[in-house]
Amino acid sequence: MITLIGYVAAALTTISFIPQLIQIINTKDTKSISLPMYILFVIGIALWLIYGLLRMDWPIIIANIITLITASIILTYKIKEDPNSK
Amino acid sequence: MITLIGYVAAALTTISFIPQLIQIINTKDTKSISLPMYILFVIGIALWLIYGLLRMDWPIIIANIITLITASIILTYKIKEDPNSK
Repeated sequence: MITLIGYVAAALTTISFIPQLIQIINTKDTKSISLPMYILFVIGIALWLIYGLLRMDWPIIIANIITLITASIILTYKIKEDPNSK
Repeated sequence: MITLIGYVAAALTTISFIPQLIQIINTKDTKSISLPMYILFVIGIALWLIYGLLRMDWPIIIANIITLITASIILTYKIKEDPNSK
């Protein structure tokens, strides 16, 4: 039961970045997205992935591979943001 | 060493939401923030907190209390967003 709660928690926090990514792809709007947030977050997720690989903990590995991909694409859109956009 | 990587990873992903929250408080702009992302994320973090409490795993408890507070405030700002804002 406790493990199930952990898996549902991991699934929700992992898939939550997908609607954010879709919104950014559709609107190209990243104005209210924080650049420092996504820099810190992507580095943190990369470390979570290393941590998971070192412990061969598959739920951590899989969740963080997915989040690393979505968060990295969001960060790339933010970095390439048009500074003149409204 | 592996545990240290885990703590640094947890610290980075936890504090990453603070610059996002500060930016929203200062600008009141949440237009490019995804509402479904923060709904899924806050529910997921609440489950992570329950998971940590059931296992009495303090790093998980502390990290997710902080993230639950910051992410909930961001979600509140998003829900109260002025639909006429640019």
